[in-house]
Amino acid sequence: MTEPPGAKDPILAVTMGDPAGIGPEIVGRTLADPPSEVAARGLAVGDPPVLRRALEICGLDVRVHAIDSVSQARFEPGTIDVLDQKVAGDDVEFGVVSETSGRAAVAAIEAATRAALDEEVAAVVTAPINKEAIWAAGSTHLGHTEMLGELTGSSRYQTMFVVKGLKIFFTTRHMSLREALDSVTFDSVTTSIREAWTALEVLGHDEPRLAVAALNPHGGENGKFGKEEVEHIGPACDEARSSGRGVVGPIPADSIFHQGLEGHYDGILSHFHDQGHIAAKTVDFEGAITVTMGLPIIRTSVDHGTAYDIAGKGTASAGGLVAAFRAAAEFAPFADAIREEYRPA
Amino acid sequence: MTEPPGAKDPILAVTMGDPAGIGPEIVGRTLADPPSEVAARGLAVGDPPVLRRALEICGLDVRVHAIDSVSQARFEPGTIDVLDQKVAGDDVEFGVVSETSGRAAVAAIEAATRAALDEEVAAVVTAPINKEAIWAAGSTHLGHTEMLGELTGSSRYQTMFVVKGLKIFFTTRHMSLREALDSVTFDSVTTSIREAWTALEVLGHDEPRLAVAALNPHGGENGKFGKEEVEHIGPACDEARSSGRGVVGPIPADSIFHQGLEGHYDGILSHFHDQGHIAAKTVDFEGAITVTMGLPIIRTSVDHGTAYDIAGKGTASAGGLVAAFRAAAEFAPFADAIREEYRPA
Repeated sequence: MTEPPGAKDPILAVTMGDPAGIGPEIVGRTLADPPSEVAARGLAVGDPPVLRRALEICGLDVRVHAIDSVSQARFEPGTIDVLDQKVAGDDVEFGVVSETSGRAAVAAIEAATRAALDEEVAAVVTAPINKEAIWAAGSTHLGHTEMLGELTGSSRYQTMFVVKGLKIFFTTRHMSLREALDSVTFDSVTTSIREAWTALEVLGHDEPRLAVAALNPHGGENGKFGKEEVEHIGPACDEARSSGRGVVGPIPADSIFHQGLEGHYDGILSHFHDQGHIAAKTVDFEGAITVTMGLPIIRTSVDHGTAYDIAGKGTASAGGLVAAFRAAAEFAPFADAIREEYRPA
Repeated sequence: MTEPPGAKDPILAVTMGDPAGIGPEIVGRTLADPPSEVAARGLAVGDPPVLRRALEICGLDVRVHAIDSVSQARFEPGTIDVLDQKVAGDDVEFGVVSETSGRAAVAAIEAATRAALDEEVAAVVTAPINKEAIWAAGSTHLGHTEMLGELTGSSRYQTMFVVKGLKIFFTTRHMSLREALDSVTFDSVTTSIREAWTALEVLGHDEPRLAVAALNPHGGENGKFGKEEVEHIGPACDEARSSGRGVVGPIPADSIFHQGLEGHYDGILSHFHDQGHIAAKTVDFEGAITVTMGLPIIRTSVDHGTAYDIAGKGTASAGGLVAAFRAAAEFAPFADAIREEYRPA
């Protein structure tokens, strides 16, 4: 007996996110018609009634197959398997924060993470959640990343952006630009270089080509326009090179992303949220996706929110989730290396 | 007798820049084969021997026609008219700072500016100069912009970037990021909005669609990630709206450029050098060009330097200068409005 085609493709668990947002619609669109060139099998994690309603709203003629364990998934064309969380029904009001939708979102994340830790799935792809809803449901986490950190026992997590194949890392992220400037130090940049380097190695770049951005205009022009390059970023690059990590930089931030997209680097270390985000999202707004590195599992995500204002209308584009699905499939071969490297001590 | 085609097209004066850099090569390439869809007639401003050598290096079979006044230009195919500055010969050493090349660069800028002020040409397009060379030649200016300010008697000049038709303005530019943060105030943003708005009107946008960027991640999230939006940028946007300038913003900087490139805005006000530069140069590195607004003449420019390292090799791409030439032609119909608005008091 021959196996059906794709029977060995990695399984990706796609959480449905907040049922009051666009998550179920974009998960439905993505799994109803997965990108044909992606060698992966997707299953949804969430509530079957929520997905059925979303498919109907989107006018998608696809069956929903509720399952209680990953092993029950059939991956049949025209059917979406849903790892049933039994939390929310098809009466969740769109665009409204509720304890129920918070619980549904959290349950899906927990189940998908468990499946990844148990190696039943190769990666987790997440649809957007609403912070207030998960707080209403009793969660105390700031968002997905912190929740995944706790569930996997990891505190080493870092965000990696991927745009057109280029991997972008961050020395700082969710803080004011003033705080970010104060947080760019020799130590923080040294640590960020080391973690970015490790992430590139784990993702199959045996000799990573990592470039480090400058912070000030024209890279500071030797201290004329700011001292961070001279006092912190430059010395951290030197220290990396003398430790065997052959990074390039600091390079003016208005050139480095262009050079990266031209194929000169595998990864770029940026230093504040918008430095990397402006580059990634201006070049490919929908296609820029987030990967949480430093967890013992692969987790990719859209970089947009629940879009409560258009939820339930069937108009949300699934482009971002499709890109996150594609990235998860691309990284799936590195699941073992990731588990090995980032296993909590 | 009928006029030859294009006889009424605006004349653009293209300075050759520093003769030791790539300027003469890219001017030669641009004027030897001007973009056919651009309705403009270009002439070079500089030294004929320098241009002849550059054409030879680039393997371009084009004649050089030295002229002493714009009226002598013939604009014949296969010939480049050069407003002769009689400064440098064909023995300027490539890649070396010299007083001669500084003088040649300054002379070309002065002659082109005079021609624009005298309305002999519709616009000035500038190739890159070397600051140290112009200083060696006795100039005390920081660069092109300051020199043009003095030559035209204007102190109101501001830099506008253009990328894929989107116009990008700046509250601050050549200072450290820390200084830029301190310089983003209600007053400076209010002034920048007003000047950007005027620039858009002068360039034919009768009802400008101007969006104002935020500064902090996620636009500061109501003060959670920084106060500049709440204390300075937001109030400046409010003040603009109550003064009849219907700006949009502040909008998170990682979304605003995407929205602008999608056609939602004519212009975007960014607040620090790299905020606008990362967006523009990551999207189209060569095609992002600079326009100096606030002068009574049109001046467009490449956004790159003299590239001493590859000067004289014939390998420099003229893409940036072609984009600047195209932009000057596009803005030429607004030369009168620009002269009127920005005439020094």
